Amino acid sequence: LEIADYEPASDTGHLRFYPKGAFIRGLLEDLAGQLAQEIGATRIETPVLYKADEPDIREQAAKFAQKDYKIRLPNRTLLMRFAGDFGLFKIMKNTTMSYRQLPVRIYELSPSYRLEQSGECVGLKRLRAFTMPDIHCFCKDLKQGMEEYEQLFTMYTKTVEAMGIEYVVAFRVVEEFYRENKKFVAKLLKRVKKPALIELLPERKHYWVMKHEFQTIDAVGGNGQLSTVQLDLEDSERYGITYVDESGGRQ
Amino acid sequence: LEIADYEPASDTGHLRFYPKGAFIRGLLEDLAGQLAQEIGATRIETPVLYKADEPDIREQAAKFAQKDYKIRLPNRTLLMRFAGDFGLFKIMKNTTMSYRQLPVRIYELSPSYRLEQSGECVGLKRLRAFTMPDIHCFCKDLKQGMEEYEQLFTMYTKTVEAMGIEYVVAFRVVEEFYRENKKFVAKLLKRVKKPALIELLPERKHYWVMKHEFQTIDAVGGNGQLSTVQLDLEDSERYGITYVDESGGRQ
Repeated sequence: LEIADYEPASDTGHLRFYPKGAFIRGLLEDLAGQLAQEIGATRIETPVLYKADEPDIREQAAKFAQKDYKIRLPNRTLLMRFAGDFGLFKIMKNTTMSYRQLPVRIYELSPSYRLEQSGECVGLKRLRAFTMPDIHCFCKDLKQGMEEYEQLFTMYTKTVEAMGIEYVVAFRVVEEFYRENKKFVAKLLKRVKKPALIELLPERKHYWVMKHEFQTIDAVGGNGQLSTVQLDLEDSERYGITYVDESGGRQ
Repeated sequence: LEIADYEPASDTGHLRFYPKGAFIRGLLEDLAGQLAQEIGATRIETPVLYKADEPDIREQAAKFAQKDYKIRLPNRTLLMRFAGDFGLFKIMKNTTMSYRQLPVRIYELSPSYRLEQSGECVGLKRLRAFTMPDIHCFCKDLKQGMEEYEQLFTMYTKTVEAMGIEYVVAFRVVEEFYRENKKFVAKLLKRVKKPALIELLPERKHYWVMKHEFQTIDAVGGNGQLSTVQLDLEDSERYGITYVDESGGRQ
């Protein structure tokens, strides 16, 4: 097929793309860009390396436990990003936004690096180096956040349907949020008419109150997850991202 | 202008691109892809990380003296590529080519990392993280190599002229090659009608016998180099890249 192989001169789980593979990958990147543009997301590009001692990065890296590629230099330690958030949140922290501009949607096609155990690397599916199209929607309040969630849910549904992939939906929802927003979840599920698993979490342990992904079975009988969407409440505070509200205050 | 800035949470010389910057960068990447396509180059994509103890990589890294970002893991040391060649040559080594297919032109848009001294980093011009569009033309013999050189010279001339940049041409040529191919150099220079410096090297110290770049003066009076082309004789042997010739032998 000559699409892609592990590069023997690189680490396990790092792919080299032959012409056909580079072509397919280019088309997928274009598609990701088009989807982002469809919902009005603006593209940015941020670095791959970050200082490991930045407070927010250190906190995230700690949760990630040894899965990062680290570069130790005489007076600083850098890590290769394992997700696209760092640079994006840093930019948003420096951005002045008014409530009138929200929601602000930012998109990055983020090369990411994760030092997975070598036995965990699987074909094209789980790698140590991969590119993650990442959209973040910054919202005024929970209501706007839920509108954005619905828009993303709908867009990804159309995309997966267009690929002709069989899937079910797996939600994870904080119980209190679920009790208050049962109708919202039901509305989403009516759009897809697919079986769904709704896992309820007794309390909020993560930065999100609700997330979902599409679960699929791949050609060799393995499990696959597609297009995760998360409704986050904590990150804006953790990363110091604020907007100017109607009365001129910061939120 | 909000185009790009150093990311303070990254290492010096790593840029973050704001929406306008990411847009401009995207257009430049498209242009590089179009130019590559114009001469029939095929795109590949290769990893960023390589094993530091691979013989050819070790040899190149030694010349590069401490300028690489290294990741030391318990049983291996990886380095971030400082140029696009490693992965590309590894693919070509595994490729079976016949003389009838030559020249084969391969293109990569290569993110590259160089641990320059922090005082050496300059604006958008000299960075520790940058992307290099890299075209390699694999040729049957020196004659074909010179034809390719001329084609690239002409293409880049048109590109620089279209940008309206004032430039002169700086050649570095091995003296023996120059004596034998004076007419070839003169022919190239007739195309541009620009002043040129031709530096003669008494013997071949590098892998190329001839190279040039366009020299410019930038807006702040600094020196800039554009579109380097090199005529290489050694790399195919060093990297074990061969083709099948008319009589079925390997060259």
